[in-house]
Formats: sequence, structure tokens, C-alpha cells
Amino acid sequence: MYDRLKGFRDFYPEEMTARREVLDAVEDTAARYGFREVGTPALERVQMYVDKSGEEIVDELYTFEDKGGRDVALTPELTPTVARMVVARGQELSKPIKWVSTRPFWRYEQVQQGRFREFYQTNVDVFGSSEPDADAEVLAFAADALTNLGLSAGEFEFRVSHRDILGGLLESMGEGVDVRDAIRAVDKSAKVERNEYYDLLHDAGLSYDQAREFDDLLSSGDLDALVDFAGTERVEAAVENLRAVLAATEDFGVREHCTLSLETARGLDYYTGVVFECFDTTGEVSRAVFGGGRYDDLIESFGGQPTPAVGVALGDATLQLLCERAGVWPAEELSTDYYVLTVGDTREVAARIARDLRSRGHVVETDLSDRGFGSQLSYADGINARTVVIVGEQDLENDEVTLKEMESGEQTTAPVDEFPGERDAPTYDDFA
Amino acid sequence: MYDRLKGFRDFYPEEMTARREVLDAVEDTAARYGFREVGTPALERVQMYVDKSGEEIVDELYTFEDKGGRDVALTPELTPTVARMVVARGQELSKPIKWVSTRPFWRYEQVQQGRFREFYQTNVDVFGSSEPDADAEVLAFAADALTNLGLSAGEFEFRVSHRDILGGLLESMGEGVDVRDAIRAVDKSAKVERNEYYDLLHDAGLSYDQAREFDDLLSSGDLDALVDFAGTERVEAAVENLRAVLAATEDFGVREHCTLSLETARGLDYYTGVVFECFDTTGEVSRAVFGGGRYDDLIESFGGQPTPAVGVALGDATLQLLCERAGVWPAEELSTDYYVLTVGDTREVAARIARDLRSRGHVVETDLSDRGFGSQLSYADGINARTVVIVGEQDLENDEVTLKEMESGEQTTAPVDEFPGERDAPTYDDFA
Repeated sequence: MYDRLKGFRDFYPEEMTARREVLDAVEDTAARYGFREVGTPALERVQMYVDKSGEEIVDELYTFEDKGGRDVALTPELTPTVARMVVARGQELSKPIKWVSTRPFWRYEQVQQGRFREFYQTNVDVFGSSEPDADAEVLAFAADALTNLGLSAGEFEFRVSHRDILGGLLESMGEGVDVRDAIRAVDKSAKVERNEYYDLLHDAGLSYDQAREFDDLLSSGDLDALVDFAGTERVEAAVENLRAVLAATEDFGVREHCTLSLETARGLDYYTGVVFECFDTTGEVSRAVFGGGRYDDLIESFGGQPTPAVGVALGDATLQLLCERAGVWPAEELSTDYYVLTVGDTREVAARIARDLRSRGHVVETDLSDRGFGSQLSYADGINARTVVIVGEQDLENDEVTLKEMESGEQTTAPVDEFPGERDAPTYDDFA
Repeated sequence: MYDRLKGFRDFYPEEMTARREVLDAVEDTAARYGFREVGTPALERVQMYVDKSGEEIVDELYTFEDKGGRDVALTPELTPTVARMVVARGQELSKPIKWVSTRPFWRYEQVQQGRFREFYQTNVDVFGSSEPDADAEVLAFAADALTNLGLSAGEFEFRVSHRDILGGLLESMGEGVDVRDAIRAVDKSAKVERNEYYDLLHDAGLSYDQAREFDDLLSSGDLDALVDFAGTERVEAAVENLRAVLAATEDFGVREHCTLSLETARGLDYYTGVVFECFDTTGEVSRAVFGGGRYDDLIESFGGQPTPAVGVALGDATLQLLCERAGVWPAEELSTDYYVLTVGDTREVAARIARDLRSRGHVVETDLSDRGFGSQLSYADGINARTVVIVGEQDLENDEVTLKEMESGEQTTAPVDEFPGERDAPTYDDFA
């Protein structure tokens, strides 16, 4: 027997049914917003990730040299790939470019609850608009996706922040501050003790007094005080932008899901504007469910025309944790509209009925194993068949079939010529 | 600018729209037959492929050693993975097991028309039935999938053969015959000159007289003559099984798509019974569009209980060639139900309208770039918006919006409170 690789998952049909239902809800939401599906490769050149994220990223990638001598990586995320695609056709594509896709990604990470080496993400991005409306639409899509999954407003929140507020504030604290390191410290702030957080800020060039002041400012959420404290146009503009995005979420009907949270930084270096993370309000799902934000510099750094961008990526594992916590994870069970059961040599009629029902869009199974009545009925029960159509030799002599409603166990006969007849979805009730 | 890897493809939205339509038709067909979706990993241990296909398979795989020292391969096909999954839960799974999935696979191959290093397949398999009905259902699914794509009976054919007829016939020709090599020769017969074919059969242990006789027997398609010639129970049983499968395809309504073709062998060694390949009847698509067959020994060889199996795999690239040849490849263009156009400060109302239309299931875009009337209208045209809802400051003073039907250019006004109102899909016609 062969074993599955650690951190990889097999999804059997019952579980897959629930996953597909959730995925469909998310993709359907994206489609309604006019996000258009793209298809992307599973392999890219390693250099693309190194250029974007630094050499250290290689430690968590699946990389190898292919038979043509290329250094390649299994894609750990979508953003560099879609950035490459935008650059490749930048001039031809009408803006804004609104793309969506769902597919697996791979990272060689420690496996833990909600984190696997192969994981699935739905990525949604808008390229070509620097307006607050684009940020707000990404937030609105994400909120609507969760709402369409059955989550209510009280069950999740988007903690919204702004990279340029953080960056501008830190910049105003002196030239010795390493803004990048300090933002990484902010990103860790919720996970570490206060003293450790201050140590990290101190390592990034702040005095301990500054660290405390910075922490107080962020946690106050007082945007006016922030502007006054920094006294720079950069922070003023960033605050104005953040307020404009939140105002747009109001118009888009999702303001209630957004909480101002300046301590939210998002670890990835490439963000430039609004950033946000989705959290389970109960805290039972202990880490961010997903996140996103604005990254206006990436396309240009990839060799394209300056192209503002904002996006979000919903991961399968944490989304499942949130849905399970909220009690909206779909039932992990098969559903079947009809099982057409044969008794004796009735395959020709049974097959005709199965074909007719399938042509009406129903899920229909029939005997493939030459089994007896009881065995077929048990199988039909196992696949949760709603109606069993019994096509027996004796019934056929009377030009009839028998319909069995599996939930009640009730059964009745129907003229074989009228089944399914003109009906779209004939059931026991139609003939009883 | 970064380049895409050779043999890998980026799919932009227009092309993806057509691909998704085709994929949906295939998956919908599978669902109606009660094939249940499974999800499977992109990486597996190399050994699994070596054991199934021999050491030489490694030459065409993307293989590497992962950071944990495991020899892994990007999955080149689905069958070993689903076999592993059946073995892992063999006893729990009720039979027949009917699975489907669509996903990418990878082979380091020469890139040519219809062949890429990353390609997509829809795999459909039935495990646990040795009955002809299972073979026939796989054929029926495949035929229905093509029919649902808009292909008519005259445009494709399934060339159906039987591995055990070939094997049994070759076995009857003497102990010196290497059956495996001879079947590989049959698999190549359509692609090489007759002399070369006879050389290959000769290399496999047949005399040249036997080679000619064997060739004549296969091309005659005379099953009775084959049984007489071989004079073995094995060939007799195989012929009986092939006839039973074809009889079942008659009942299942797809016999017309099946042609007896004993020269069809399928290259893969693991087939054991009926095999088939789908061809473009015009011959314009010069190689098999896809193929499948019965492989009753694989699960046991993977360490499971003896479990008969039959399946088919539809590949994206050749399927596209067939659809294009037959003129049924879907239009590669976007479709959009509504574009909600703002003139002046009308975002709040426009957003409300967009939200209402989206909640009715429509694809709706609106301005994300703070652009003027002409620019928005041009964008709406670019995404093939059917109806543009113009939300202008002046119209709103009269509590109206303007509906523009993009195809005709006609426009009319509608009361803002009644849009969309009770209507599911309001258009110009409703208000003109």
C-alpha cells in the first residue's frame, strides 16, 4: 500500500460535496461582481518568488531543477503569476482587470490545524484602479462570499488598516527606524507579549518610549490624533484614503463587517495601502481566516507599467474552520435524485428511464453490478437516493414501474409510458 | 519581465470562458451519471509510478527530492492516485465506487499541437464492477459528454477493442510470443507502414506469416473467425465480454458511437479488458482525442482486495481540437448582464442597484475608477454588458435611472424605486 505525502489531502466524495458547495458559493459571488476566471500554471521560475519575497522564501518552497535545467517552484501563491500575466498583456487588457481563480498552492511548511503543504485558495484581484472603490469592492466581495455561505454579521469581522499610515507614522519617528522591520513587529503584536513587542520595535530603531507611544496611538484607533502626531502629508493622505475606503464600504453595504484595526499589518512586504484580515469574532479560530490588501508597486517591479492593484485570497482550510465554528459547513453526504432498480431482464427499459431522467438534469444511478433487489436497494440508500424507480419484469407485464420514496418507504405504481413522461421531476407524490 | 515555462499555459478570461463552458458540460454529464467528485494531491511518491509503469516512466515525469528527502513526482495521471485511495479505504467504500475529477497533470514531454507539459483531464472511473454494464456506462458517459458539447453522432467515434482478445490471440500463436511487445506493436500499427508493423510483430516473436495472418484477422473484425482461429476459452470469453459490452451500449443509447476496432490497443500496459479510443471521424484531429478501458488488476497490485475497474480520461487539449474542428468550441468572450454607470455623485444609489441585481444572480459591474460617462460606456461595451443602467445626478432628481440596451443602442428611463423592483431580470423592454 502506498502512503499519501504528509501535508497533502485526499478528498473522498462526501467531504468533497461540502467543499464543492462552499467553493461554488464563493465563485458564484465573485462571478456576480464581474470577476473573470483565469487559469494559471502550477510551476513558475523560482527567481520570480525570490525577487518578490527575498532569498529566504526558497526555504518554504517546493523547488527543483527541471529536465531542461530550469530552476522551478511549485507556485506558493497566485499574486506573482497574475502580475506576470498582467505585465505580459498589460497594454491589451482593458482596465480595471478583475480576475478570480481557485486552485491548489504548495508550501513546505510545518503541518498543523488549518495549515497544509497543499492548500487551495480563491484569489480575487483588481488591477488598474487606485480608487477607494476598488479596495471597497474587494472587501464587499469577501463579505458577500461569507454571507452567501450562511455566516451572519456577528460571526466575522474584517480588521482594516493601512500600510501607509503605519509606514508614515514610523517614518515620522526618526530616520533610524527600519520601517519594514517595525511593520513586521506590528504584524506579530497580537501573538506576543507586550514586552516582546516593544523589544521588536526597539530592534527596529524605536526608543522604548516611542514604542509605547506608537502602540498607544495604534490601539487608540484615533485617526485625527495620528495625523496630528505624524504631522506629515503622507499620513494625512493615508488616513484620508482609509476613510474613503470605509465610506465606500458603507455605500457597498458591508461597512458593518469592517473594524478599524491599525494593529493589523499583514506580514507580506509588498502591500502599499489598505490591508485587512478576516477574523472569527468568537476567537475560536485563533488566526486570521484570510486577508488581503493593496499592492500598487508589484506590477511595475515586475517590469510592467505602473498599475495599482488590490486583492484578497480565501484559503480553504481556515475558511472551513470558520464555517464549522459558525455551524454553516455543509453536510458531508451524497445526494441522488433517482436510483433505477432492475429486477430481472429489464435493462433496456431501465436504461431508457435513466436516460430520460438524466436529460432533465437529475443525478441518476442504476445497477452496474448485476445485483439483486435487496443489494440494489441498500446501495440506493447508501447514496441517499430520494426516489427509487423499480423496473421489474412482472410490473412491466402490466406496463408499470414502481416508485419508492426512500424517506417514507411509501411506494406506488406508475404507467411505464408516463415515466417520466412530461414531468420534470416525477416523484411518488405525482402517482400516489 | 518574467517568462512562462515552456509547455505551460496562461488562460486569460475570454479563453477561460470557453474552457469553463466545456468543462461544465463534461462535469455536469458526469454528475448526472452519479459520478462523485474527489479531490487529489498534485504530488505523489515516484515509486508508485515506477511500480505501475516501469523505470522508464521517470524520464517523462517532473520528479525531485523534497525537503524531507522524499522522492516525489508531479502527478502525470490520476489512475495511480485513485487506486491508492481505493486501497486506503477499500472496505469502507460501498461498491460500485464511481468517481470523477478534473485537474491538471504534468509530463516533461515534447511540446506540440494538442500536447503540453501541463494539461488538464477529467477522469471518470468505476471501481468494483466487472459487469459489461460498467464498461458501457463509461462509454455512455463519454458519448453523452460529447453530445452535450454539441457534437453529433457523425463527428466522433469510439473505436472499441478488447485486450484479452489481443492477448489471447497472441498467446495462441506460440509460446515464443512476447504478448506485451506485440500489443505495443498493435498500438503503433495505425502510425507506421505495414512492413514496419510486421517487423515490430516479428520482433515480438511472430513469424512474418503469423504477423500477416494476425493483421488480417484483426482488420477483418470477424469475431467468430477470431474465436475459431484461437480455439481457446480465453478468446471465446473475451469475445463474449466484448459483445456483452456492445449490447449494453445499445440499451444505454450509445451503440451508434461505437465501432469495433481490434487494431485499437491503448499503449498502457495495465488494461485488461475492453479498451477504446475516441477519434474525430474526419481525421482532421489526427490522433486519439481520448481513451479508456478496463484495468481489473491494478487495485490488487497496489495492495488492495481484487477490485475490477474501468475508466476514461478526457484531456483538455485534444478535446478542444475536436470541438474546434466540429465548430462547437464556445465563443471566447465575456458576458455581463448589467453595467451600472455613475454620472456625478451617485455611488450610493448605483451601489444599491448593483447589489440588488447581484442578489438576483446577475453578473454586474460598476465603476471602480472614477471615470467619466464615455469611458465607462466603452468599458461596458468591452465586457459585453447587455444592459447599462445609467445612474445620473439629473435623472435622480426626477427619481429615475436610464436603461440602455447595448445591442440596439436604445434607451429609456425607469423609476429608480422600481429598479430592479420585483423583476428578476429587468431590461430595456420592461420600461420602453
